[in-house]
Amino acid sequence: MELHTCLWNDVDAFSFRENDLHPLTKHYPTLQIRIHQNVNSFLAVAEQADFVLTWDFKKSWYAACPKLKAIFTPAAGNDWVQGDPLKKVKLVYGRFHGRLLAESLLGALLLMNHRMPEVMHNHHHRDWDRNRLTTTRLLGNQTVLIIGFGTIGQCCARLIQQTGANVIGVRRYPDQADKNGQEIHSLSALPLLLGQADHVVLLLPGISSSDRFMNPDRLAMMKQGSYIYNFGRGNSLLSNDLLEALPRLAGAFLDVTEEEPLPPDSPLWDRSKVVITPHSSCIYSEYKPLFVDEVTGHLKTYLKPVT
Amino acid sequence: MELHTCLWNDVDAFSFRENDLHPLTKHYPTLQIRIHQNVNSFLAVAEQADFVLTWDFKKSWYAACPKLKAIFTPAAGNDWVQGDPLKKVKLVYGRFHGRLLAESLLGALLLMNHRMPEVMHNHHHRDWDRNRLTTTRLLGNQTVLIIGFGTIGQCCARLIQQTGANVIGVRRYPDQADKNGQEIHSLSALPLLLGQADHVVLLLPGISSSDRFMNPDRLAMMKQGSYIYNFGRGNSLLSNDLLEALPRLAGAFLDVTEEEPLPPDSPLWDRSKVVITPHSSCIYSEYKPLFVDEVTGHLKTYLKPVT
Repeated sequence: MELHTCLWNDVDAFSFRENDLHPLTKHYPTLQIRIHQNVNSFLAVAEQADFVLTWDFKKSWYAACPKLKAIFTPAAGNDWVQGDPLKKVKLVYGRFHGRLLAESLLGALLLMNHRMPEVMHNHHHRDWDRNRLTTTRLLGNQTVLIIGFGTIGQCCARLIQQTGANVIGVRRYPDQADKNGQEIHSLSALPLLLGQADHVVLLLPGISSSDRFMNPDRLAMMKQGSYIYNFGRGNSLLSNDLLEALPRLAGAFLDVTEEEPLPPDSPLWDRSKVVITPHSSCIYSEYKPLFVDEVTGHLKTYLKPVT
Repeated sequence: MELHTCLWNDVDAFSFRENDLHPLTKHYPTLQIRIHQNVNSFLAVAEQADFVLTWDFKKSWYAACPKLKAIFTPAAGNDWVQGDPLKKVKLVYGRFHGRLLAESLLGALLLMNHRMPEVMHNHHHRDWDRNRLTTTRLLGNQTVLIIGFGTIGQCCARLIQQTGANVIGVRRYPDQADKNGQEIHSLSALPLLLGQADHVVLLLPGISSSDRFMNPDRLAMMKQGSYIYNFGRGNSLLSNDLLEALPRLAGAFLDVTEEEPLPPDSPLWDRSKVVITPHSSCIYSEYKPLFVDEVTGHLKTYLKPVT
C-alpha cells in the first residue's frame, strides 16, 4: 500500500522529512512512502494513495483519490483539512497536543504570576527591586478557568492541578466530557466563573461560533487584576477588545492573535502587560515523533506490523 | 507569656506588621505580642521575652534573654540567626519554603526551555519567528539534577516530577534523606550525573563548605546545551566561573548571585542567555501567613490555644 505525505511547512518543527518517517517504514516494511513537497506533486499521483499524511486537504481532491482509505493530519483543529463529501475516507486528527500545550500553558501561568515581563525589563535596566513581587500569589492557591475543555484542555488541567490550583473547565456540552474528577461547567456558569478566576485561559477552536467569544461584556466580567491567556485560536479574542479591557487586567499572554503573524504596527506589541508568542505553544522537537507514533498505531487497522 | 518580634525587613513580603500576627493573638489570647522595629527597642526589654520571632539573632543577645524558650525564624538557612552557646534556647527554622520555591523553580525551568528571554527580546522587535523553538524539548522528557536535596529540594522534585521529568537529587549524606521514592545520590555520582542532566539546579546553603561548589571543573562536566540554575546561595557559583562556562551552556537562571544586589557593572546583566531575579524565589504574599501558621503550631508546646 502507498502512504503519501503532504507535510511541508514553514515551521521546521512541523515540516516532516524522510528521516522523521523512518518509524513507519520500520514497523511496516511493505508500506511505500512517497514524500511530496507541493500540491501538484501529490495530485499528479494521488490516485495511487491509500493513506495521506497532510496539513491540508481540499474537498475537491477526494475525487482524485479513489483508493484513499484514511487521512491523518497532525493538526488538532479542523482548520485546514476538509472532510470527505462522500464520507468514505476516514479523517484522523492528532491527539498528542495536550502534553505539549500543557507545559506551554503552565509555563505561561507561572511566568505571568512571577511578573517575568517586568522582571526582564528590570533586568535590562540592571535593577534589583525585591518589592515587585509583593502581591504574587502561589498558583497552587489560585483558580484557573479553562474555556474550551476538550481533550487538550483536560490534559492541561491535569498538569496545572498538580500545583494545587483549582482548575475549572467550561465547554458548550459538558455532558460529553470525560470528567476524570474535573469540575466542568456549561456556558451559563461563565458570568459567575469569570468573576472568580485568577487566570482565564481560552482554548477554543477556530470555528465561526467562537468568533469574538471573549467579547467586551465577558472581558468586563473578569476579576480585576486577573490574567487572560489565548492558546486556542485568534478569532475568539479581538485585539481591540483586549486593548480596551487591559487596564483592569494584570496581563495577557497571547500565543495566537486575531491576525497572524501579528502585524508589526499592532498596538499589542507595545503593551508591557502583554506577552506574545508566535503561535508556538506546540513547537517542540517531540511534535513530529509523537505524530508519527500515533499514525503507526492507527495503521495497525490496515497493515500488519513487523513483530 | 511574651512574644517579641524582630521581623522588620527591606522586602515588604518579609516585613511582618501587626495584622500579619493576628492569627497568633486569635489562637493564644493570653500571649502578649511586642513588635520591634529595631534592635535597640528589642534589647531594651529582651529580659521579658519568652519567645522571639526574628530574622537576626546574635550570640551576644542570649545573655540578655533569661526567660527565652524558643526563637522562630522564617529563614530556611542558618545565615542570620546564631545558635545559643548554652544550648538552652530552641531554634526553629521555617519549613514552609518548599512549596514557594517549587513554583518559582518550575517556572524557571519552563521559561528557559521555552527560551522566553529570547522570545521577549523578539517581542521588543515585533518579531514573529516560529523557528526559534525548533529544538525545544518537553521538560517531561528531560533530566533535572538538584544539588542540595533537603526538605526544599525534595519538595521541588515532587512538583517537577509531575511533568514526567526524571528528577535526580544529590546531597552530601544521601542516607539521611526522606526518599519518598526519589532518586538520591552522593557527591561521588556528580561527574556522571552532570553529564546527563538537561537542567542542573543548585540549592545549596550559604555555608563555607558550599563556597565555589560549582567550580570550573564541575561546570565543564555539564552537558553541552544544558541549563544551570542557582536558587540556593550565591557563594556556590561565582560570576566569573559562570561567565567562562556560559558559551557551552544554553543558559543560566540566577535567583542568587555571588554579590547581592548584583552590582550594576556585573557583566552577567549583559548576557542574553542569563536571567537574573533579585533573590525573590520565595517572595509570595503567602510567605507571612505560612510562617505565622507554622509558629502557631509550634507554640502549642508552650501555650494552650483557644478551642
